[in-house]
Amino acid sequence: VMAPHWVSRWPWWLFRASPGWRQTACTLRAWVEPRRWPGSFQGAGVASPLARRGCSSTSSRLPAVVLTQERCAVQRLPFSTVSEEDLAAFECIIPGRVTTDPEELEAHNVDWLRTHRGCSKVLLRPRTSQEVSHILRHCYKRNLAVNPQGGNTGMVGGSVPVFDEIILSTALMNQVVSFNSVSGILVCQAGCVLEELSRYVEEQDFIMPLDLGAKGSCHIGGNVATNAGGLRFLRYGSLHGTVLGLEVVLANGTILNCLTSLRKDNTGYDLKQLFIGSEGTLGIITAVSILCPPKPKSVNVAFLGCPGFAEVLQTFSTSKGMLGEILSAFEFMDAECMQLVGRYLHLACPVQESPFYVLIETSGSDAGHDADKLGGFLEHLLGSGLVTDGTLATDQKKIKMLWALRERITEALSLDGCVYKYDLSLPVERLYDLVTTLRAHLGPCAKHVVGYGHLGDGNLHLNVTAEAFSTSLLAALEPHVYKWTVDQQGSVSAEHGVGFKKRDVLGFSKPPEALQLMCQLKTLLDPRGILNPYKTLPSRA
Amino acid sequence: VMAPHWVSRWPWWLFRASPGWRQTACTLRAWVEPRRWPGSFQGAGVASPLARRGCSSTSSRLPAVVLTQERCAVQRLPFSTVSEEDLAAFECIIPGRVTTDPEELEAHNVDWLRTHRGCSKVLLRPRTSQEVSHILRHCYKRNLAVNPQGGNTGMVGGSVPVFDEIILSTALMNQVVSFNSVSGILVCQAGCVLEELSRYVEEQDFIMPLDLGAKGSCHIGGNVATNAGGLRFLRYGSLHGTVLGLEVVLANGTILNCLTSLRKDNTGYDLKQLFIGSEGTLGIITAVSILCPPKPKSVNVAFLGCPGFAEVLQTFSTSKGMLGEILSAFEFMDAECMQLVGRYLHLACPVQESPFYVLIETSGSDAGHDADKLGGFLEHLLGSGLVTDGTLATDQKKIKMLWALRERITEALSLDGCVYKYDLSLPVERLYDLVTTLRAHLGPCAKHVVGYGHLGDGNLHLNVTAEAFSTSLLAALEPHVYKWTVDQQGSVSAEHGVGFKKRDVLGFSKPPEALQLMCQLKTLLDPRGILNPYKTLPSRA
Ligand SMILES: Cc1cc2nc3c(=O)[nH]c(=O)nc-3n(C[C@H](O)[C@H](O)[C@H](O)COP(=O)(O)OP(=O)(O)OC[C@H]3O[C@@H](n4cnc5c(N)ncnc54)[C@H](O)[C@@H]3O)c2cc1C
Ligand SMILES: Cc1cc2nc3c(=O)[nH]c(=O)nc-3n(C[C@H](O)[C@H](O)[C@H](O)COP(=O)(O)OP(=O)(O)OC[C@H]3O[C@@H](n4cnc5c(N)ncnc54)[C@H](O)[C@@H]3O)c2cc1C
Repeated sequence: VMAPHWVSRWPWWLFRASPGWRQTACTLRAWVEPRRWPGSFQGAGVASPLARRGCSSTSSRLPAVVLTQERCAVQRLPFSTVSEEDLAAFECIIPGRVTTDPEELEAHNVDWLRTHRGCSKVLLRPRTSQEVSHILRHCYKRNLAVNPQGGNTGMVGGSVPVFDEIILSTALMNQVVSFNSVSGILVCQAGCVLEELSRYVEEQDFIMPLDLGAKGSCHIGGNVATNAGGLRFLRYGSLHGTVLGLEVVLANGTILNCLTSLRKDNTGYDLKQLFIGSEGTLGIITAVSILCPPKPKSVNVAFLGCPGFAEVLQTFSTSKGMLGEILSAFEFMDAECMQLVGRYLHLACPVQESPFYVLIETSGSDAGHDADKLGGFLEHLLGSGLVTDGTLATDQKKIKMLWALRERITEALSLDGCVYKYDLSLPVERLYDLVTTLRAHLGPCAKHVVGYGHLGDGNLHLNVTAEAFSTSLLAALEPHVYKWTVDQQGSVSAEHGVGFKKRDVLGFSKPPEALQLMCQLKTLLDPRGILNPYKTLPSRA
Repeated sequence: VMAPHWVSRWPWWLFRASPGWRQTACTLRAWVEPRRWPGSFQGAGVASPLARRGCSSTSSRLPAVVLTQERCAVQRLPFSTVSEEDLAAFECIIPGRVTTDPEELEAHNVDWLRTHRGCSKVLLRPRTSQEVSHILRHCYKRNLAVNPQGGNTGMVGGSVPVFDEIILSTALMNQVVSFNSVSGILVCQAGCVLEELSRYVEEQDFIMPLDLGAKGSCHIGGNVATNAGGLRFLRYGSLHGTVLGLEVVLANGTILNCLTSLRKDNTGYDLKQLFIGSEGTLGIITAVSILCPPKPKSVNVAFLGCPGFAEVLQTFSTSKGMLGEILSAFEFMDAECMQLVGRYLHLACPVQESPFYVLIETSGSDAGHDADKLGGFLEHLLGSGLVTDGTLATDQKKIKMLWALRERITEALSLDGCVYKYDLSLPVERLYDLVTTLRAHLGPCAKHVVGYGHLGDGNLHLNVTAEAFSTSLLAALEPHVYKWTVDQQGSVSAEHGVGFKKRDVLGFSKPPEALQLMCQLKTLLDPRGILNPYKTLPSRA
């Protein structure tokens, strides 16, 4: 429904004003069509859905990942170990879908960032909530620990076992249950891949309320379990608002059906909220009801170069005023990010080199009105010197190319060496100060110190790379980064969650009373602690 | 910032096409400036803030309300009764703010609908969270039951005691803590009146993400405690999404500080969610951090007459397509509502009499664009016969007048006699069928059977009035209404909550596993059950 004529509505002076402006990206050097994530990272052409979601098939070419239990000071809790009888029981519940093959398990034992490795011996792939219920009932009785796993794209080591926890994968729970094309309410199983859901609802003129770089692999259940933020958060808000219902299997196998698909339902406590962002520690999400916004009739993406971070901020506040209700994303990245994306993924910068880049997306219902608003906005930016160069994409292919620059930073970073990742909420005004300070502070100890992220939500992704892991670099980073963040009233985990990696920094963002209530909720819902142990809750509690 | 010239942008044919169209409401008969709610209902000129929030000063003129404990089969639980020592202890904590005067207590013992009456002997008005904490610590030790109370506008008898529970009012906790005029994040005490907050943030070019007919009296804490929906829900979504943080005092006096003001914070379980919609049964909300959207630069309200409900529905789906991101409210009311509003409040119908009326609001950042969209939309409606008459308001005064027609229905109904109120979520397609069926079914037993509500959210307010309370009418309504709702996969309480009135219909919308988990959460957070007893949870549990 993208009106092909509206390009001509751009004010002519926009193109005259600066020779740097280019209408679309088609004239740019060296554009490489972004390959489907994460195929390109894992090595070419692995087509099986399972391989696409894990890293098995190429792991032999990658450096081995040390077992988490060897790298970290962590004690196995007294869970049972899986016996032959257990395997037989599982085989009864989900015949043919119990895997013990070490090679197949490899992809499920190692996380996306390749920093955590478990040694699970069993992978279970149920298809229905009833099967999940039977599995958990058995595990609960037998005191067997279970690690729920979606697309295994989590960033905090929550998605893989620490020891020998049974991996319960939602990979085969990938059916759409219903879609109401009037209300836009989608009900589906937890294992549906986000990108596939996107395609599905887009065919019916809706979009998913969330989008993220991992969309080709992550599951909607994993998204809900991590309360994923992502690229559309600015416009469509949190999953706490857009998820309308959940079906969850509790630790003892009870199926909790809160799968309503109503916009409003105030019949008692909103129980589903408990599970959004609980990272598999309170229950296994088996189905999701979610509200999809109508597909915007017109989408535009502007990619702009800014001379400094002050200009990035001013561009942001100007965009809120001038683009108003059609603003759908405001992302930023620094020059270092662009260099890494260029070096490792051969994506060329579409504008003149600048210290900062911003990606602004608009989504609206009237292409002409949107072009008007965006035109006025870009004119203003250019006239006031807030941006020095820019390019604009109006068709889907070019839009995807521009988005790839931002979405694939994570991937480029992971190719640069050992990555120290921080995902912080900060007041926008101070958001980049931490990057600048750290760069000076770390000097040559770090290969790169980069900052990018969802500026519109006050969410900085701070990443530091080095040739190899070093405890001295870690000591220079932590707790400094966390302390700095807390001094700004920020959060030490904006969207990635806690998992295994951050469970001991929780105290920076949550008072003791809150940590205590978290533990009480865990005990209430999972009294034996079999669900995703060693994760999300403070280890000393 | 409303552009005064944009009126001229309306296509000329809009006015020619139908003589019924009127540009603004100024030419209409008998407009009565809406008086501040609920002053007009309670009798003229009661100016003290407390009286404004209660009904005391005129209650002598109104029929007496029977004590809930006499009207309903309910047993007092074995809480202690307030002693002289307790009063002295309270006086120590909040000197001069302990009230035992029966006349002053009257307004706090009787609910807005005048169907519930408690016999509390003590009203406490703390100013700070510390004071609330000290009060609860005392009550917890002494096993004294506490009824948290905001503006006492709740619709389900949750805001007043059933027996002699201590009333803890947030009326004096009305301070704004901070407002960030860049991010729009407001932090304030729980007792701030919604309308006052609206005024406050509007001065800084923001609006509150919620609005409701009770705004002149209800407190933000009460809104959060009931998870109020209201008139802006369609656009800005649920409080589960817009509330960023809460401070809550737990039953034992513990202050739980989750008062972050960050867009994103995934550091462990999102504890604040537990308290949103928990109606004072899990903790007392003392402060709220909430995200305010920017104030739209242009607001328009169209009030239209539709020949049938099918046309209302088609008008709705057309509005989603043609108004897209600027649609900010879609309300409907039937002819009977209009008659009641006319009869009791002397508000005249601004359009030709029709079987149905819809109120459509747009909010956008560019008055010209909005006028364009709305113009095209209205032209389409008129051309296709979906609406037969309409009026449009573009300035704030007229907008308020049109809104009053919809907002004051509750008030008009309460003047028509004894009201049986149902607040249901239903699939929009079947939303009005229940009203039609009931009207035929009840015949002359009912004075009026009316339907109105937040159509855009699938939320029907079904109201039946009668001269006096009658058990036979009640028996004709219940459980029929609930069963019908559940047959349509609806919810028996869309936004009003459960309170005292609906605790035994919860089972229609929640499975036993969910009810059990609700009870477990209650026990975890309030082991002695002192917080708002007899409310929100099923009585047989
Ligand atoms: C390239 C890339 C970009 C990313 N971008 C973003 C971003 O923009 N915003 C953002 O928020 N995150 C981002 N992430 C991280 C994000 O958390 C995940 O990508 C995604 O939400 C996790 O989904 P998943 O299915 O892969 O879950 P997994 O990684 O498999 O699991 C994540 C956690 O959820 C639990 N879990 C999974 N499924 C279930 C279930 N059904 N029931 C209960 N628990 C379950 C797991 O036990 C684990 O603790 C990104 C990751 C990558 C690799
Ligand atoms: C004219 C009118 C129009 C209305 N329109 C709408 C509407 O459009 N949408 C909608 O959803 N509702 C509507 N309502 C009902 C709505 O629930 C309330 O108006 C409002 O949200 C309650 O706020 P309050 O401060 O009056 O709370 P109260 O009525 O005082 O209390 C409501 C409940 O919350 C609890 N509570 C109050 N404050 C706290 C606190 N600080 N901590 C813990 N618990 C607390 C009470 O114990 C009680 O259970 C309307 C009511 C009226 C009279």
